[in-house]
Amino acid sequence: MEKDPLRGNATISMSYPASYQAVDDQVANGEQFRTVSVSSDDDMIDITTTGTVTERSIHQDEVSAWHFMAIKYSGHSGGGVTIQGMQGESDEIPGIGQYDDFHTIDWQRDIARDRMRHRYIIKKKQDSIWDLIKGAHDAWSGWVCVLLVGVSTGVVAGVIDIGASWMSDLKYGICPQAFWLNREQCCWSSNETTFDNGNCSQWWTWPEVFNQSREGVGPYIISYLFYIVWALIFAALAASLVRMFAPYACGSGIPEIKTILSGFIIRGYLGKWTLIIKSVGIMLAVSAGLSLGKEGPMVHIACCIGNIFSYLFPKYGRNEAKKREILSAAAAAGVSVAFGAPIGGVLFSLEEVSYYFPLKTLWRSFFCALVAAFILRSINPFGNEHSVLFYVEYNKPWIFFELVPFIGLGIIGGIIATLFIKANLYWCRYRKTSKLGQYPVTEVLVVAVVTAVIAYPNPYTRMNTSQLIYLLFNQCGISNSDNLCDYNRNFTNVNSAIEIAAAGPGVIKAVWLLVLALIFKLVATIFTFGFKAPCGLFIPSLCLGAIMGRIVGIGVEQLAYHYPHIWVFSGECSTGDDCITPGLYAMVGAAAVLGGVTRMTVSLVVIMFELTGGVRYIVPLMAAAMASKWVGDALGRQGVYDAHIELNGYPFLDSKEEFAHTSLAADVMQPKRNETLSVLTQDSMTVEDVENILKETEHNGFPVVVSRESQYLVGFVLRRDLNLAIANARRTMDGICGQSLVLFTNTSPLQTSGPPPLKLKKILDMAPITITDQTPMETVVDMFRKLGLRQTLVTHNGRLLGVITKKDVLRHVKQMDNEDPNSIQFN
Amino acid sequence: MEKDPLRGNATISMSYPASYQAVDDQVANGEQFRTVSVSSDDDMIDITTTGTVTERSIHQDEVSAWHFMAIKYSGHSGGGVTIQGMQGESDEIPGIGQYDDFHTIDWQRDIARDRMRHRYIIKKKQDSIWDLIKGAHDAWSGWVCVLLVGVSTGVVAGVIDIGASWMSDLKYGICPQAFWLNREQCCWSSNETTFDNGNCSQWWTWPEVFNQSREGVGPYIISYLFYIVWALIFAALAASLVRMFAPYACGSGIPEIKTILSGFIIRGYLGKWTLIIKSVGIMLAVSAGLSLGKEGPMVHIACCIGNIFSYLFPKYGRNEAKKREILSAAAAAGVSVAFGAPIGGVLFSLEEVSYYFPLKTLWRSFFCALVAAFILRSINPFGNEHSVLFYVEYNKPWIFFELVPFIGLGIIGGIIATLFIKANLYWCRYRKTSKLGQYPVTEVLVVAVVTAVIAYPNPYTRMNTSQLIYLLFNQCGISNSDNLCDYNRNFTNVNSAIEIAAAGPGVIKAVWLLVLALIFKLVATIFTFGFKAPCGLFIPSLCLGAIMGRIVGIGVEQLAYHYPHIWVFSGECSTGDDCITPGLYAMVGAAAVLGGVTRMTVSLVVIMFELTGGVRYIVPLMAAAMASKWVGDALGRQGVYDAHIELNGYPFLDSKEEFAHTSLAADVMQPKRNETLSVLTQDSMTVEDVENILKETEHNGFPVVVSRESQYLVGFVLRRDLNLAIANARRTMDGICGQSLVLFTNTSPLQTSGPPPLKLKKILDMAPITITDQTPMETVVDMFRKLGLRQTLVTHNGRLLGVITKKDVLRHVKQMDNEDPNSIQFN
Repeated sequence: MEKDPLRGNATISMSYPASYQAVDDQVANGEQFRTVSVSSDDDMIDITTTGTVTERSIHQDEVSAWHFMAIKYSGHSGGGVTIQGMQGESDEIPGIGQYDDFHTIDWQRDIARDRMRHRYIIKKKQDSIWDLIKGAHDAWSGWVCVLLVGVSTGVVAGVIDIGASWMSDLKYGICPQAFWLNREQCCWSSNETTFDNGNCSQWWTWPEVFNQSREGVGPYIISYLFYIVWALIFAALAASLVRMFAPYACGSGIPEIKTILSGFIIRGYLGKWTLIIKSVGIMLAVSAGLSLGKEGPMVHIACCIGNIFSYLFPKYGRNEAKKREILSAAAAAGVSVAFGAPIGGVLFSLEEVSYYFPLKTLWRSFFCALVAAFILRSINPFGNEHSVLFYVEYNKPWIFFELVPFIGLGIIGGIIATLFIKANLYWCRYRKTSKLGQYPVTEVLVVAVVTAVIAYPNPYTRMNTSQLIYLLFNQCGISNSDNLCDYNRNFTNVNSAIEIAAAGPGVIKAVWLLVLALIFKLVATIFTFGFKAPCGLFIPSLCLGAIMGRIVGIGVEQLAYHYPHIWVFSGECSTGDDCITPGLYAMVGAAAVLGGVTRMTVSLVVIMFELTGGVRYIVPLMAAAMASKWVGDALGRQGVYDAHIELNGYPFLDSKEEFAHTSLAADVMQPKRNETLSVLTQDSMTVEDVENILKETEHNGFPVVVSRESQYLVGFVLRRDLNLAIANARRTMDGICGQSLVLFTNTSPLQTSGPPPLKLKKILDMAPITITDQTPMETVVDMFRKLGLRQTLVTHNGRLLGVITKKDVLRHVKQMDNEDPNSIQFN
Repeated sequence: MEKDPLRGNATISMSYPASYQAVDDQVANGEQFRTVSVSSDDDMIDITTTGTVTERSIHQDEVSAWHFMAIKYSGHSGGGVTIQGMQGESDEIPGIGQYDDFHTIDWQRDIARDRMRHRYIIKKKQDSIWDLIKGAHDAWSGWVCVLLVGVSTGVVAGVIDIGASWMSDLKYGICPQAFWLNREQCCWSSNETTFDNGNCSQWWTWPEVFNQSREGVGPYIISYLFYIVWALIFAALAASLVRMFAPYACGSGIPEIKTILSGFIIRGYLGKWTLIIKSVGIMLAVSAGLSLGKEGPMVHIACCIGNIFSYLFPKYGRNEAKKREILSAAAAAGVSVAFGAPIGGVLFSLEEVSYYFPLKTLWRSFFCALVAAFILRSINPFGNEHSVLFYVEYNKPWIFFELVPFIGLGIIGGIIATLFIKANLYWCRYRKTSKLGQYPVTEVLVVAVVTAVIAYPNPYTRMNTSQLIYLLFNQCGISNSDNLCDYNRNFTNVNSAIEIAAAGPGVIKAVWLLVLALIFKLVATIFTFGFKAPCGLFIPSLCLGAIMGRIVGIGVEQLAYHYPHIWVFSGECSTGDDCITPGLYAMVGAAAVLGGVTRMTVSLVVIMFELTGGVRYIVPLMAAAMASKWVGDALGRQGVYDAHIELNGYPFLDSKEEFAHTSLAADVMQPKRNETLSVLTQDSMTVEDVENILKETEHNGFPVVVSRESQYLVGFVLRRDLNLAIANARRTMDGICGQSLVLFTNTSPLQTSGPPPLKLKKILDMAPITITDQTPMETVVDMFRKLGLRQTLVTHNGRLLGVITKKDVLRHVKQMDNEDPNSIQFN
């Protein structure tokens, strides 16, 4: 090592790990110091900050290993000091900087690592053209990544839409000329203008395949049987695929994604197998006619895509905190393709899914959502012009007094939603604790068969849920021949206003069928959501609400027809025009139930508004969503996603709930009374002592103090890093044995005999977040949320008292809310 | 004091301040402790948390004055202890908990105060029906407040729109039958179907008033003169009102509102005078034909309304942090009424204006924005059906290759925006430093006269800026008779497609006039924005962009007409239809310039989309906004609002910019080398010592340490609180003199002689946020942003080293960016 002229321009070349020691050795108190260039063969980090040593000589041996390096040198500020061989500990000991499965991540640490990497790249850019390209690649990688995610999400969504539509139609019949076409595509080549229930001569229903007529008892039974058999096959396939290849592909995935985005590791949850199985599985599950939607799984699929693409870019793939920026954008893209609602998707990601949403990623999420929607629209899987899912156009504005039934819908919606959540949770808890959980495939099959058997006879449950919602949202016009539009009126002219009319027998019948459908869908969804196949909750919720809303809407309409002169109807309804649009009630009802189930607010209104293209109806939608949310909050505290998070015991610290209790940090911290805190000292423990502590305790990290007597805090070291570092040292360094001193300082104590010490300062976090024992827990909870902490250290007058981990905080929150604190299972 | 049976159920009644001491005196180490009920005559706070004293007996004397109170008692957990006379210090010493003008607020402290108040109300609710009503009032006050703010904002916006429209028309003529009608309303009673430039026989232009004909040289001169004179009168009124009654009513207000929302106090900036003068002033300024818009001021007006209403609700009026939640909602309402864009308003508030935006206020902001938009639409000031400002409907989709000119528009827009920002800043800086600043009214008058004189001859600059934008956005159809639509084509049928055609002489002339208008508007806006009258920047920016876009659009259109067979046009344009819509280019250009000037992203796209109702054009708008932002960021770092914040030296810590340097907390903290840190000790300083420190230093707060030798941190006390407390003690307590000891503990040192000690523990913050000296500044900046800190204390191994205030952080950021750190003027 060329240690010489440190004054003036000087270069120190040395190899790691001597560098730390060498630099520190030659620094005396009171000298000027400067954070300097640190370079190795291919690593160069220039740090230009200068500073001075304070009188209390605090910089003596403070090299924060993975942040950067600060050394001191005396005198002239023109001096350039170069030290080779260090960038960050992550390059030195393999595995450091990563996390174990089912562990909480440390946002601050990961973001610091990313900035370190960023500065390094900026610095290197000036070296060569290749580095410049690498730098540009890095700068653009965020945009490139979300572009790729957006494009892939759009493509996958298109494939799923086409596949699900084809397989759904397979339940009814086949296109003999070209079996890969669904009914609609099959009929395109037909010149028939009038379809019978969407059937044309090119499309063979199953009775026709067996040379039967379309109508009659025999063909009905054949159709019924085929419907059940196909449902069984699809459901069996979906459940077996999930069970065999990707157990994480079941459910909606949104609770887990919320947890992952809040900073938790679930290995494989966003992997390629999950992606493939979930994509195929959701097609099958939707086709099986189960009471589920593909919207939630679409978010999960988009996040899988985001996760997979992030590995192409080390900036995101190797940094859990940065990766979550991509995942947030992917979640927005998922909602965007699920509903054709890019703005709603971004707001959903912001409001509901994402935890740590820096504003700069808002723009990127929006880009991602837009690209995905654009690609899906270009693929045009539904073959229609509208980019929105349930495009409606009402030709009547709403009347002010209608706010009363709309708020009523909100209240009923909130009640239905709460009922659903409670019943579903009860069933899921039963599944978890009973033997039922051991037969996931059987359960799916039973649900599928029962659903198919009950659903087929009722035309409203037999049809696709999306089709039903679309039908319910629609206004009755000339072209609409469904029972729902069987009013006693004659259409004379397409352009004339639709007059209000008495309901015909068809409407009465339809209402009874809808009531049955409502009950059936509610019960079926309770048993469906949470079983071991991919299943989303958006479409069933919308459907429940739409049925309820349509029924209420028809009621209000008939009220207005029969009593046109009571004051509320006297203004707009007395002219004979149809002043009440039952379809609008369906839309508002749908928003109410979905709002009650998920407790979404702004994003719900924006999604509904984008979904239906109904700009004029924001106020009714909002009134219903608000009423529903308040009713839901009053009846049961949590939305369905939060309830499932709790059910699974994930460590999710809700950023929307307020912590309203008066406890102090001292009440929450570990250790409790009569327990001792496991600490390491900075320079008086041997490798054996440390290994004993590692063996005896299960903490994820240990504070390092000056001495056991004084307990003044020096830093914090993670269990994982300590394990790796000791194992690494024992493997690679000579002389390290059980009696070696473990040093977290740079200056060794005067020790001439004995084995060489093990220097672990590089894995010590010199800047742990600390709080005083008197800090109110509200502030502590706030810090955990906003700074994304994994743990914080509690001190009193500078002395270490204890540690608070995220798990401690979550348990404490549970305890304060009179719930079982042991439901929090993970760290 | 009944000190006895502390074991079992017991009650201690005592009066403040003895309570602290009494409780603490009887606690010994190792005993169980419990945070207990604290009550006084009308204050009752029940704290149910229990805990234990750790072995190191840290709870001995830790009563955090304004958080709550923790005491210990031995033994049985059934004991109930009641202490009277304490709620929080804010009730005891008047003025504590408030802030001085031009100071930064402490979010954590304010939020803690609010939660304290909240718990107190919850507790009291059970006492009586009156308290229950008060509790319900408190729970609803947030919603009631934003409802009131929304309604008032809508009404005020309606009044401003109507007033500005009437006064603008006054420049051209008068409605003799009813002078209070504007031209459009005046002509409603007319049965004439063809208007001449919007004029009808009921409306008299000024030449007609003087018995002249409408056309000719004489009438032209009369019109010209009236135009100038009215402009002068309006401008003079606006400037004088601002100067005389409300100096804060000038400018757009957005930079200041950003600063206020980031946690800064500017007294009177959101007061009633500002509201009244800004409302009247913006009407006058817009009517004067100056190159400004009313959108920015509308945000300021809405925030004034929010601030005024918040005083009706103590929850918000007396708590600066909570008040900012209302202000965020009000800002959203301001944008909502300015553009008729509620979703855009919320996103603008979220992305651009607000700093600390808890997600739960998102919903409330949306409600506020929606109510305001609904009220404004009910008032219907423009008398048209559309709720959107510039409603356009294009009947052609955009072609993929058009993304190239759209991105081109984005680049040009970014360049124009940067040019504008730099020139405007240069001029504003000149105004600040030169004598010009002393003649604000004269400046406004000169700008108004010059603008009027130059603007009148050019029809595009003479007309209202909003009208011009609407004209430029529009598609040429049958009804459009402007020069811009003078193409060589015949309209045969309303429904047939518009064919592409060569530009006629009118278009050529219009383009030249538009080029002149562009230059004029650019120069005029540079001199206008920042002068001492209300002025907004949205409309001028949109106008600049629309002119630029329309010119480019006409160019591309003519290119497509003349070369229909080159490959880019060969698809859609070869059929003879008009494949290029110049109006769409105007829209995209407008978004580009506005994006470049303000650096908005998502909110810009959403506002443009809501503004124009053009759902199909999100992708072009986004491409242009993105290109413009990147060009702008490359050419000049800041948007116009941030530049003006910097110009005024406000302490605004941008939450979007990353801190990319490697300094440590130790480099930034005060004191620097060779300076000493002003600290107070917990129990060894006299009142005189403290007063000397207060006199000698200007710090806003002082750390309290165990002793000068050890420097172990105990807490933090604010200068303001210290001043108030000493003054209060000298006034009200006997025996307090210069030699009295100032105690921040509860246990007095053994001191038998001398005057009684002054106990100030109640104003001591026992839970200051601390960091270690090795904390990287990125983390520190992050903490300041996310936790809303005012200062943080720097420690090393438990010993206090220094303090970092927000000002220090801002100065350090400036220094690192090679800018003048002394430009930060406020604390």
